[in-house]
Amino acid sequence: AGDPEAGEGKIAACAACHGTDGMGTSPIYPNLAGQSAAYLESAMKAYRDGERGGGMSALMVPQAQGLSDEDIADMSAYYASLEP
Amino acid sequence: AGDPEAGEGKIAACAACHGTDGMGTSPIYPNLAGQSAAYLESAMKAYRDGERGGGMSALMVPQAQGLSDEDIADMSAYYASLEP
Repeated sequence: AGDPEAGEGKIAACAACHGTDGMGTSPIYPNLAGQSAAYLESAMKAYRDGERGGGMSALMVPQAQGLSDEDIADMSAYYASLEP
Repeated sequence: AGDPEAGEGKIAACAACHGTDGMGTSPIYPNLAGQSAAYLESAMKAYRDGERGGGMSALMVPQAQGLSDEDIADMSAYYASLEP
């Protein structure tokens, strides 16, 4: 399982759109606060593997491709730990 | 914009995984409550167009392919209207 404290140090890029509080900064960006880590990891890996297209995937695929499994687990644990 | 009351009558299939309250019934299913309608419509159309793969797309693509733009707008308005 990911480490939410480590994740907090890895979400600078994410926060531009999803906030440090996990709330989308514009209606087109989903809220991440309170989603389960399992779902967030699944979504990030689908972007990283180039499976998840459409929507904001032109932005998300390159962001995800720089991340390790551990990075994704930590970042997911961080956003999962927040209250929406 | 979608009609949340009409949407409430269209989410029987969605609710199996996302709840009538918009909260995922298992950790692998994302919460939809309180997401913006703009985001929900974007995600559903990416599934419908076969662009969004990975994750639970094997389930979501066929679900979305039966929906009109109006259906998607109504269902999105319904889930956007709920508090997480």
